[in-house]
Amino acid sequence: MHIHWMDRFADRTARIQPSSIREILKLTQNSNIISFAGGLPSPEYFPNQQIMRATRRALEEHGVEALQYGVSDGFLPLREMLVRHMLRYGIVCTPENILITTGSQQALDLIGRVLINPGDSVIVEEPTYLGALSAWNAYGAEYVTVPSDDEGMRVDAVEHALRTTHPKFIYALPNFQNPSGTTLSNKRRLELVRLADQYEVPIIEDDPYGQLRYEGDHISSLFSIEAYNACLESDGVNFPMARNVIYLSTFSKTLCPGLRVGWVVAHHDVINQMVTAKQGTDLHTSTFAQVVAYETARGGFLDRHIRQLRRVYIERRNKMLAAMEAYFPPGVVWTKPEGGLFIWVTLPHGLDSHELLKKAIEDEVAFVPGSDFYPCGGGENTMRLNFSNPTLDEIEVGVKRLAGVIEAAMQRRQMPA
Amino acid sequence: MHIHWMDRFADRTARIQPSSIREILKLTQNSNIISFAGGLPSPEYFPNQQIMRATRRALEEHGVEALQYGVSDGFLPLREMLVRHMLRYGIVCTPENILITTGSQQALDLIGRVLINPGDSVIVEEPTYLGALSAWNAYGAEYVTVPSDDEGMRVDAVEHALRTTHPKFIYALPNFQNPSGTTLSNKRRLELVRLADQYEVPIIEDDPYGQLRYEGDHISSLFSIEAYNACLESDGVNFPMARNVIYLSTFSKTLCPGLRVGWVVAHHDVINQMVTAKQGTDLHTSTFAQVVAYETARGGFLDRHIRQLRRVYIERRNKMLAAMEAYFPPGVVWTKPEGGLFIWVTLPHGLDSHELLKKAIEDEVAFVPGSDFYPCGGGENTMRLNFSNPTLDEIEVGVKRLAGVIEAAMQRRQMPA
Repeated sequence: MHIHWMDRFADRTARIQPSSIREILKLTQNSNIISFAGGLPSPEYFPNQQIMRATRRALEEHGVEALQYGVSDGFLPLREMLVRHMLRYGIVCTPENILITTGSQQALDLIGRVLINPGDSVIVEEPTYLGALSAWNAYGAEYVTVPSDDEGMRVDAVEHALRTTHPKFIYALPNFQNPSGTTLSNKRRLELVRLADQYEVPIIEDDPYGQLRYEGDHISSLFSIEAYNACLESDGVNFPMARNVIYLSTFSKTLCPGLRVGWVVAHHDVINQMVTAKQGTDLHTSTFAQVVAYETARGGFLDRHIRQLRRVYIERRNKMLAAMEAYFPPGVVWTKPEGGLFIWVTLPHGLDSHELLKKAIEDEVAFVPGSDFYPCGGGENTMRLNFSNPTLDEIEVGVKRLAGVIEAAMQRRQMPA
Repeated sequence: MHIHWMDRFADRTARIQPSSIREILKLTQNSNIISFAGGLPSPEYFPNQQIMRATRRALEEHGVEALQYGVSDGFLPLREMLVRHMLRYGIVCTPENILITTGSQQALDLIGRVLINPGDSVIVEEPTYLGALSAWNAYGAEYVTVPSDDEGMRVDAVEHALRTTHPKFIYALPNFQNPSGTTLSNKRRLELVRLADQYEVPIIEDDPYGQLRYEGDHISSLFSIEAYNACLESDGVNFPMARNVIYLSTFSKTLCPGLRVGWVVAHHDVINQMVTAKQGTDLHTSTFAQVVAYETARGGFLDRHIRQLRRVYIERRNKMLAAMEAYFPPGVVWTKPEGGLFIWVTLPHGLDSHELLKKAIEDEVAFVPGSDFYPCGGGENTMRLNFSNPTLDEIEVGVKRLAGVIEAAMQRRQMPA
């Protein structure tokens, strides 16, 4: 007898759906389609030469460590370097507070594994990063959504959610949020940390883009705000470490995604539990990738490279904003991100961006329909555009094509253009 | 208020325990202890030079693919190469039947994720690989154990277990099993595949060591036996693909563990479901590691390197067996593995290898206590010894030390030596 696998799969698989973004990526690979869909960095600025030299040093100086099994918490010199790197962004911790993960996606998975019981609710922004939803769906999470506006997550709505539900944690992307591109204001950050403290609910602070700010001043992370508060309350002897915030970041947007090296900063109780959980999932992140990441980033290269990326990406963002201004019909509005990779577009009510995508693909331009970022439905008239991956010329041509698709759809629905 | 994390963790964390092997590894790192504990390959034979050249080719010829986000099922040229590589071991499949995983440990995790509902039972050998238990504990698996002997898993006991329980799958390590070192005989393989077919229960065939056979003839995998049976039954037109067996292997024991590149071969229904599950856990395995593994292995290097490892490891195995013969007191027995990395030692009844380990560490030699490989208890008088990682001299000295520790324990218990 041959097994019918479909009848055998575990119940949780019903909640694990293929990522629509990855489906669109497949569609746009090896085609003439100009894609604003992925969250892909610019491949022209991958530091190939630096990685080549780093690999030579990795194999010559750390040959055995780079190729042998390693500890589950991660390559110690890399964690030590990250302590120094994050200090520049106001995050104070020790190597014992850091876990190296196989990209930030694994951090999200491990957080689900150690924190979420089936039926637990999680407070998320609307829209929010769908990779987090796909990680936590597997653990049976339910979502309580709060709206966001130009200053990010509506913290007054968070307070309402905290009062009326018993969430396991709050998920926040304070900097240049994926997908909306908006940044949580300092005032709201202070309030969010205060609320989390008051209601004793942890915050997951997902910050893959924080280092890619193109204008305006750096705003303190939720992690450092909580640490600062703890410092004020402490006896002045203990190290002022955030306890309630779990902070995530990654090299995927600053060096390259292919290494799959991200990290978590948290209280050591959380790190210990995540390390144990990680042993069962992949033993440890590729030591080869970790040592190469370390050898690539160290000695000031990471900071220099981030400065270069900022110069490249601000041009692309400006180009996309200018093209949208020039070509998009009236009635379409969008965010003006101060950093990161994404612009969020809201179309007139009644337009469905999933329908629009089919026409757009015919006209050789792609984006991600916004409703995919709404865990409880909604957002049909929204879309996410990426400006880091396409070149300036592609941005110009692609936005023009997309404007044509939007205009045609508005005319079909007899909307005033 | 500061959060007390211990009160927040999900229920499943109670079943996720730190791996005792990894704890022993920490203990033996950077010390004078001769360790027979890990399942570590010999670092002297890591192909550093080849990996260096491979990285150059990877960055020159596949620069963008190696550093950018990639597809979740894995780098296509690598999957195509694995099709050819596995054909040499009698495994027939297409690239669509292969999923690249972040080491075999991730394959075990994804199998748990897509197949195990809480409370589902799984048939495992006693002793069995504890990494599989640590992966599946997180999904609420229960274990039905079957004993093993010199010919591997006792298949008569499997039939009894199939008749009396409704297991989700059977977990088998047919070649040079971890931890026992024994090999499932051809007769039992045929019978096991027949039983799985009759009872419609899938088999997970975990085969990290199959390529490292030092003597005797290759025995067909469960996967190829099932495919052969399907071929006999088929219309002669359809491709004879195994349906009931999920086969796992890895580069960790043949190239190096640090890349964290393993793979799954299975029916495409299973692969599709695992690909979707993988998206939520780490998006994809490091493209950098995948392209480097591909560029290292191709062009015949992998086969040449495996031949070299066989020559190195048979010497180490022979040395360990000879030293045990020379130094271990009567009453101690052990397996004679035809391949792989491990020898399994059974001490006289009444000796506890966990107690023994403490004395052994004092005398600067380490092993893994056997009871850790028994999911339902037992095996207190057993231990696993690794012979691939220590040098010939270390094996000689380490076995002598261990013999002394065993003899002293037997004398303390007034056992006849």
